[in-house]
Amino acid sequence: MQSFFDIDHTHEPSQRSWVASANTGTTDFPIQNLPLGVFSTAVTGPRVGVAIGDQVLDLPAAHDLGLLGDAVPRELLEQDSLNALFAAGHGTGLALRHAVFRLLHAQEGLQAQAQAGSILHAASAVRLHLPTRIGNYTDFYAGIHHAVRAGSLLQPENPLPENYKWMPIGYHGRGSTVKPSGVEVRRPNGQLMAAGSTGAPGFGPCRELDLELEMAVWLGRPSDWGVPIPITQAHEHIAGYGLLNDWSARDIQRWEMKPLGPFLAKNFGTTVSPWVLTPYALAPFRVAMEPRPAGDPAPLPHLLSAQDQQQGTFDVALEVHLRTRKMRSDGADSIAIIRSNMRYLYWTPQQMLTHHASAGCEMLSGDLIGTGTISGPRQDELGSLLELTENGAREVTLPNGEIRSYLHDGDEVTLRGRCSRAGFVSIGFGDCAGTIVPAIS
Amino acid sequence: MQSFFDIDHTHEPSQRSWVASANTGTTDFPIQNLPLGVFSTAVTGPRVGVAIGDQVLDLPAAHDLGLLGDAVPRELLEQDSLNALFAAGHGTGLALRHAVFRLLHAQEGLQAQAQAGSILHAASAVRLHLPTRIGNYTDFYAGIHHAVRAGSLLQPENPLPENYKWMPIGYHGRGSTVKPSGVEVRRPNGQLMAAGSTGAPGFGPCRELDLELEMAVWLGRPSDWGVPIPITQAHEHIAGYGLLNDWSARDIQRWEMKPLGPFLAKNFGTTVSPWVLTPYALAPFRVAMEPRPAGDPAPLPHLLSAQDQQQGTFDVALEVHLRTRKMRSDGADSIAIIRSNMRYLYWTPQQMLTHHASAGCEMLSGDLIGTGTISGPRQDELGSLLELTENGAREVTLPNGEIRSYLHDGDEVTLRGRCSRAGFVSIGFGDCAGTIVPAIS
Repeated sequence: MQSFFDIDHTHEPSQRSWVASANTGTTDFPIQNLPLGVFSTAVTGPRVGVAIGDQVLDLPAAHDLGLLGDAVPRELLEQDSLNALFAAGHGTGLALRHAVFRLLHAQEGLQAQAQAGSILHAASAVRLHLPTRIGNYTDFYAGIHHAVRAGSLLQPENPLPENYKWMPIGYHGRGSTVKPSGVEVRRPNGQLMAAGSTGAPGFGPCRELDLELEMAVWLGRPSDWGVPIPITQAHEHIAGYGLLNDWSARDIQRWEMKPLGPFLAKNFGTTVSPWVLTPYALAPFRVAMEPRPAGDPAPLPHLLSAQDQQQGTFDVALEVHLRTRKMRSDGADSIAIIRSNMRYLYWTPQQMLTHHASAGCEMLSGDLIGTGTISGPRQDELGSLLELTENGAREVTLPNGEIRSYLHDGDEVTLRGRCSRAGFVSIGFGDCAGTIVPAIS
Repeated sequence: MQSFFDIDHTHEPSQRSWVASANTGTTDFPIQNLPLGVFSTAVTGPRVGVAIGDQVLDLPAAHDLGLLGDAVPRELLEQDSLNALFAAGHGTGLALRHAVFRLLHAQEGLQAQAQAGSILHAASAVRLHLPTRIGNYTDFYAGIHHAVRAGSLLQPENPLPENYKWMPIGYHGRGSTVKPSGVEVRRPNGQLMAAGSTGAPGFGPCRELDLELEMAVWLGRPSDWGVPIPITQAHEHIAGYGLLNDWSARDIQRWEMKPLGPFLAKNFGTTVSPWVLTPYALAPFRVAMEPRPAGDPAPLPHLLSAQDQQQGTFDVALEVHLRTRKMRSDGADSIAIIRSNMRYLYWTPQQMLTHHASAGCEMLSGDLIGTGTISGPRQDELGSLLELTENGAREVTLPNGEIRSYLHDGDEVTLRGRCSRAGFVSIGFGDCAGTIVPAIS
């Protein structure tokens, strides 16, 4: 097993922080987590931080006070993205985790605690940015339950493509419109063609605006152009994980996607959670994926490793919450409309990355991979409204009587993810939220 | 007409430079052209330059000597990309053109000529880099003669998609593997599935490695997220033009592309010409595209403007040259195997850009758009080997007796483009060249 997946004292449930809000048992960010992100305040520009309870640790400030020792060069922290830190690889990442753990630890971090006012910011008072400067964004289609259901609705003649069980199918997405949680997303306009029509398409606001529940995979150590990444080394190139909502305009998508794939139906906006959970934090939650059904082919040799088959993904319980404009004005909480789990993917993130680089594609630090929509086998585990409402045919009634087939203006969609295992403290991903605002007319 | 398309004294054929090699009549880079690029030398890092004859003008050095006046801030020139200069828009671009024109002019530039040793480098002695830091790369499919022919070979059941005449079809490409002319391109490995087979795909070197003749469109002034670009303003966002070879692995493509489009078949490498020809240089060569065939629909209103229909593209004569390993060792020149013209596109670059932003996609300075393969109606105007050899069925015999269906290792492919019009000096794009090296085994 690679050292950065070792379970060590930083994972022990008895460990507590001097930041009291980290010890509640319900926070996404106990001292066992320590996710990385980029934040700014009213007085400082973007810089690297760590979420701890309801606070954000300012890493350059901690470095200036000597509280991080020489774990990481300061120039990797005084950055408006995590690209440089991620490029440094897992040795640096692990050293930083251990230094931050000591700093925030209830017993070991007393010197830091005395400086709390200089190194902590209330999370409610900072602005969270994209974690990386995204050079390249690729979206996969690795959730097989989604692929079967969405395929049967979008292209019934060929619901599961012939190549699906042989390769992780992916396509290039648009980096410029990936935005962090909390940013409003504008309903797109586009060409809309009535089913079966042979006349002119219309042009106007999307009527079938959907969400897609995905995981984000953030890349670390770059690869060289022309050189593949062996499946056994793929982990070395993955810096961490988050949540991703691949907003989708289904009506635009149906008309535009043949033959070259989704384009405007996806590139109007993608929302990601701003905190990156490291492989070190996620180590206790490694699992095998759901077994491949009997009769499915084994992956080709270059996509196959025993370790990857046995521990290639994580047990991440996923939820999609919806809060309508009426719910907000009534003071009602959001409701969970979808539940799923990362282990339902058919391909591991490592298989996606190895496939991606197998023809020579150069993978850069800070690049973003989306896994594709993660649905489960059950009716309440469908990761998009396309599936949940059978393309609008089966409307969903919310507890307050509102109905939805697709998203309305004012709807707020929040993805959440949480890892739990007996004997360990649960950790979470923080919110991946976006609210739909009306189309430009 | 917009001012940056005005024809002025910088286009007059009588204008000559004190750089003698700019006045030959055959050079791509006379004083009427003045394309922008990024270069480095043995002693200076990457910086902005202008091609003139067989020389490269060092813009930061010229600025330091006061030879550019105050046309452009120096910080836009001491850059390893053109992103900042392009973001400044056409006012700055035009001011720079006129300042450089004066500097290089046979009569007006005498002070600069006296400093030639400080501001000129032999083109043969510099390294040319990518012109921009490519945040996002999109490849269109706007060559209708290519779409019909390639479609009938790759997916005969649906050669020209239903949406083709309603929208410029495009897909997101991979920015990280766009490389400048002269860089070797490695033959990709990939999954290969024999036609009609139901067994396992193989994995190995691509056997059907192709080129695609495209134009590159480099973006300038950025757009805002969520805000469309009106067709009448699209020109304001285009900084310039170049050549692009969209290397394509046809066998990998056939197996992978359904349903989400080409992925590994394209992302192993794309070659671009390093010099960016500005709209100002190209102004005399504006033309209408070939007329739409009778019965084709008019573009939807948001994609339609009279100016764009009448002058939306350029008369660029295009050629693809091939030089095999044997031709090199025999000392033989390359031969032109394909000729075409930019005016054969079905959609203008402005229509591509307006469509791209119509759902709200944010367009950034330095982004790259490929037009799609530009074939013409005639048999010697096919912009890819897929078309030229009917997917390998009709081998091409070269003058030295070698035969080709697809590219062999060692083959060098060079795209060239040139604009000519009576009463004007011809200008060209420089080479867009790449040589295939063997796959990794």
